[in-house]
Amino acid sequence: MDDAHVAGPEPRHLPVTDRTTLRRLPRRGSHERETIYRILDEALVCHVGFAVHGQPYVIPTTFGRIEDRLYVHGAAASRMLKTLAGGAAVCVTVTLLDGLVLARSAFHHSMNYRSVVLMGTARLVVDHAERDQALRAIVEHIVPGRSAHTREPNDKELAATSVLCLPIEEGSAKVRTGPPIDDDEDYALPLWAGEIPLRLTPLAPVPDTRLSPELRVPEHVTGWRR
Amino acid sequence: MDDAHVAGPEPRHLPVTDRTTLRRLPRRGSHERETIYRILDEALVCHVGFAVHGQPYVIPTTFGRIEDRLYVHGAAASRMLKTLAGGAAVCVTVTLLDGLVLARSAFHHSMNYRSVVLMGTARLVVDHAERDQALRAIVEHIVPGRSAHTREPNDKELAATSVLCLPIEEGSAKVRTGPPIDDDEDYALPLWAGEIPLRLTPLAPVPDTRLSPELRVPEHVTGWRR
Repeated sequence: MDDAHVAGPEPRHLPVTDRTTLRRLPRRGSHERETIYRILDEALVCHVGFAVHGQPYVIPTTFGRIEDRLYVHGAAASRMLKTLAGGAAVCVTVTLLDGLVLARSAFHHSMNYRSVVLMGTARLVVDHAERDQALRAIVEHIVPGRSAHTREPNDKELAATSVLCLPIEEGSAKVRTGPPIDDDEDYALPLWAGEIPLRLTPLAPVPDTRLSPELRVPEHVTGWRR
Repeated sequence: MDDAHVAGPEPRHLPVTDRTTLRRLPRRGSHERETIYRILDEALVCHVGFAVHGQPYVIPTTFGRIEDRLYVHGAAASRMLKTLAGGAAVCVTVTLLDGLVLARSAFHHSMNYRSVVLMGTARLVVDHAERDQALRAIVEHIVPGRSAHTREPNDKELAATSVLCLPIEEGSAKVRTGPPIDDDEDYALPLWAGEIPLRLTPLAPVPDTRLSPELRVPEHVTGWRR
């Protein structure tokens, strides 16, 4: 019996759990996998949260996604990798900033954004085939097409690297779009209001100074967009 | 006796504590206040980490800085504000992404970035003058010059808003710049390597559709840069 026939929450959505119930501005929230995946796939960096003896740490890092699995990697000796591989609860948050929302009132200033918060427990990836796929997915996530133009990891590099998988099972997205929403009586004020849209844009690629001059900039670099 | 005459760590630097000792790639790290402040002042969003019953949460939010104090605000009823006002340990992380670093080896792919991790305990701001300054600092942090062009918060709005102060006492910055660093034997490979620099750029401001047409776009909007 495949997933689509299992009773329970729509597989198209993550379940709404106590800790992923959207309490603040729930109209901006979603538990839909498609929405969550689109935000994850556009982001370059996630912020990984974990606690050690009650002290929270929030560490920025790159990541990749394969279907319903999020992968992060790092030095096997790092505190983050060791803590998460040990089964600590984790929160992974991704934030895309789309614009500054300037209202007439200071109070209604806001931002247009798309964010995802995932929760759960990560597992250390020990299977070599899964590890190799995950490392490739991380490179491809940042620069699609790049992995065909790199020297693959050797055994020494792989031994120094840990890969963690966070199953995408619990979490939510939050999205704000559109103009400022002011109080009715404030619309008459002679104050400019609107949005300053923001984009993350690539500048011209900078070749490594040690690059042999006959190497042309490949398409996956010149065509990089987000 | 002023701070400059107190024995101990240079006031220009944050103290190096056990949890802010830079273990991974320490050459990229700094505890210098000036470096930390510059990164904080450029960022639009921070990621606030805290734990509730062992479960970490990482929440993106705006912030402001006044001297050695970081301010965040939010709905008084939100879990984040209530948890932090209750004295929970907090970690605030800010990340600026400057470029994608494409090495010849998959392993040496990296990013150019500037990040700050702050740790400590926040306090609820109860003094009205400090609260008002903090709220103004948050608006000014995002859009310098904006606060003179807004309707100030009224009592009802202030009652619904909590402001928290995190003293900037413990933390560090981490910065990567420059080209990829490949293994010596990889430089001969016929693979393109270099950097794709990234910038957060504003697009043309979008006036609110309910704006009276004679209101021109003010300078603090047209001139916004980061």
